[in-house]
Amino acid sequence: MDSPFSEYLQARRAEVEAALTAALPTPPECPAVVADAMRYSVTAGGKRLRPILCLAAAEAVGGDRSLALPAACAIELIHTYSLIHDDLPAMDNDTMRRGRPTLHVVVGEAMAILAGDGLLTEAFALLTRAPETNDPAVVVRTLRVAGVVAAAAGATGMVGGQALDLAGSRMPSGVRSGAAPLDADGLRVMHSKKTGALIRAAAVAGAIIGGASDAAVERVDAAAGDFGLAFQIVDDILDVEGDSAGLGKTPGKDAAAGKPTYPALFGLDAARTMAAECLQRAERALGGAGLAESRLMDIGRWIVTRSN
Amino acid sequence: MDSPFSEYLQARRAEVEAALTAALPTPPECPAVVADAMRYSVTAGGKRLRPILCLAAAEAVGGDRSLALPAACAIELIHTYSLIHDDLPAMDNDTMRRGRPTLHVVVGEAMAILAGDGLLTEAFALLTRAPETNDPAVVVRTLRVAGVVAAAAGATGMVGGQALDLAGSRMPSGVRSGAAPLDADGLRVMHSKKTGALIRAAAVAGAIIGGASDAAVERVDAAAGDFGLAFQIVDDILDVEGDSAGLGKTPGKDAAAGKPTYPALFGLDAARTMAAECLQRAERALGGAGLAESRLMDIGRWIVTRSN
Repeated sequence: MDSPFSEYLQARRAEVEAALTAALPTPPECPAVVADAMRYSVTAGGKRLRPILCLAAAEAVGGDRSLALPAACAIELIHTYSLIHDDLPAMDNDTMRRGRPTLHVVVGEAMAILAGDGLLTEAFALLTRAPETNDPAVVVRTLRVAGVVAAAAGATGMVGGQALDLAGSRMPSGVRSGAAPLDADGLRVMHSKKTGALIRAAAVAGAIIGGASDAAVERVDAAAGDFGLAFQIVDDILDVEGDSAGLGKTPGKDAAAGKPTYPALFGLDAARTMAAECLQRAERALGGAGLAESRLMDIGRWIVTRSN
Repeated sequence: MDSPFSEYLQARRAEVEAALTAALPTPPECPAVVADAMRYSVTAGGKRLRPILCLAAAEAVGGDRSLALPAACAIELIHTYSLIHDDLPAMDNDTMRRGRPTLHVVVGEAMAILAGDGLLTEAFALLTRAPETNDPAVVVRTLRVAGVVAAAAGATGMVGGQALDLAGSRMPSGVRSGAAPLDADGLRVMHSKKTGALIRAAAVAGAIIGGASDAAVERVDAAAGDFGLAFQIVDDILDVEGDSAGLGKTPGKDAAAGKPTYPALFGLDAARTMAAECLQRAERALGGAGLAESRLMDIGRWIVTRSN
C-alpha cells in the first residue's frame, strides 16, 4: 500500500519520532538509569496515532503543523507512561508490548514506575515550555492546551478510566473491588475515559494550536470522540481475530481475563457495524466545520481498517 | 509555643488544607474508587512545608498570597504523589506514613499507583488553569511557574533523585544496581534532586507569582536550595534521634536499610553544624534582595528546629 495517505503517515511518524527522541532528558542532568528506561519505552515504536492526530488537526484547521509538534509529543509521552504503568505486575501484569519485553521486565518494577512518572512530568514540561513568540494569543493557547491535556489525562479522564477498568475486573493483586462486571453503558464510560479522553485531547490540542474557532474545536472534539470509540471497538475485534505477530502482544488476553469487550457484549458483526457508524458520525461532525475532506478523516478510516 | 509565627503557620496550613480539599476531583466525573484514594493521602496531614513556603515567598516579594494558592496546592499534590509511589512495595515498601497505614496497604498497589498518577496530573491541571485576569503578564507568569514545577518534579529533578536513591541502595525488588553506595557528593546530588528541587520550585513559584524581579527570584531560589539541604540533614538527624510517635513513621529505618545519611557520613555534631550553616547562607542570600526579615527566614528556622 503506497497511497499518498500511507506516505503521509510515514512522514508524520518520522517527524514525531525525531522530536520525541530530542525531547527526552539525557545525562548528566537526568540520571542515566531513568533516562535509559524512559527511552526504552518511548522508542519502542507503536502507531503514533495520538501525535499524528494532533498534527493533522492543526493542519486541517489551517494552522502551522510544526507549532503543534511539542503538544503532539507530550501526548505520546503520556500515552507511553500509561502503558508502562498499566503493564505493571500490580495492574495488568503484561510482559510483552510491541513485540518486546515490557519495561518492568527489563528494569524492575521500581524503575518502571519512576520512568512512567518521569514521562508524565516531562509531558507537562513540554506543554508549558514558553512559545518562541510573545504574542499573547499564542501564550494563552499554550496554557489552554496544557489544561485540556491535564484534564484528559487525570483522574476524571484516563487515570479514572483505568481505575474503572481495574474495579470492573478482578485486580491482579488479589484485591476484589466487589463491583459488578461492566455492562454496555459502563464499558462505554470506562473506554471514553481510558482511551477516548486522550485521543480527543490530541485532536483538540492540534485544533486549538492551529487557531481554530471555538465552534470548529467542538466539531473536532466530537469527531475525535467517535474516533476513540471506534479505536476501542476495533482493538477489541483485533484481540479476538488478530495474531500475536501483527499485534505485538498476546491476542485473546482480554477475553481470557474476563474483561468485557464489544464483541463479547454485542457479537463481532454488531461491533463492526458500531465502528462504521462512529466513522459516519465523525464525518458529519467534521463536515459541519468544512473539515470532512482532511487528513483527520483519513486517520479515522485508518483507525477502523488497521490490522494492528 | 504560641508565638506569632506558630499562628502564621496554623493560619497558612488551614488555608492550604481547605484549598487542597476543594481542588481534588470528585464523583461523578472522577470514579469514587480513585477519588477516595487520592483524598486519603492528601488529607493525611503533614507539615505542608512546600505550599506554605510558596505562599510566604509570594508575600515576601510584595505579592498577593491568594494568587499563589493554586500553585502552592499543586506542589503539595506532587509531594503527596511522590510519597505514595515511594512507599510502594517495589520502592521503599513503607507501611506507615504520618501515623496511618500507607495508601497501598489500604487500597492495594494498583489503586495506589493510579492515585499517585492522578495527583501528579491534577497538579498540572491546577497549574495550567487560566488565571482570572486577561493581563498577558499574569498569563506568562502562570505558564512559567508550571514549567518551573515540571522541571523540578521530573526526571532531571525529583524523579531523578528517587532513581539515584534506589540505584545507590539495594532495590527492594531484588534488582541490584551494581552502583557503589553514595559518597558525600553523591548524597548531596541525590537529595538536591529528590527533596531540594521541589522545595526550591515552591519558593520560586511563589516569588514569580508575587511579581519578583529576576534577581530577587534568583535569591529566593538560592535560599530555598539551602532550606532544602537543611531540611534533609535535619530529617536524617531526626531519623537517628526521633521517636516513632513524633515522626509518625519508624525511626532508624534509613540507617537500618543501609541508606547513606548525613549523621552516618559526618557524625551528628557535624551534621547539626551543616544545617546551621545552611540557614546562615540562606539569610545572606535573602538579605541581598532585602528579604531577610520575612516569613521566609522564619520558615528556614522552623525547618532546622522542628522535631518532626
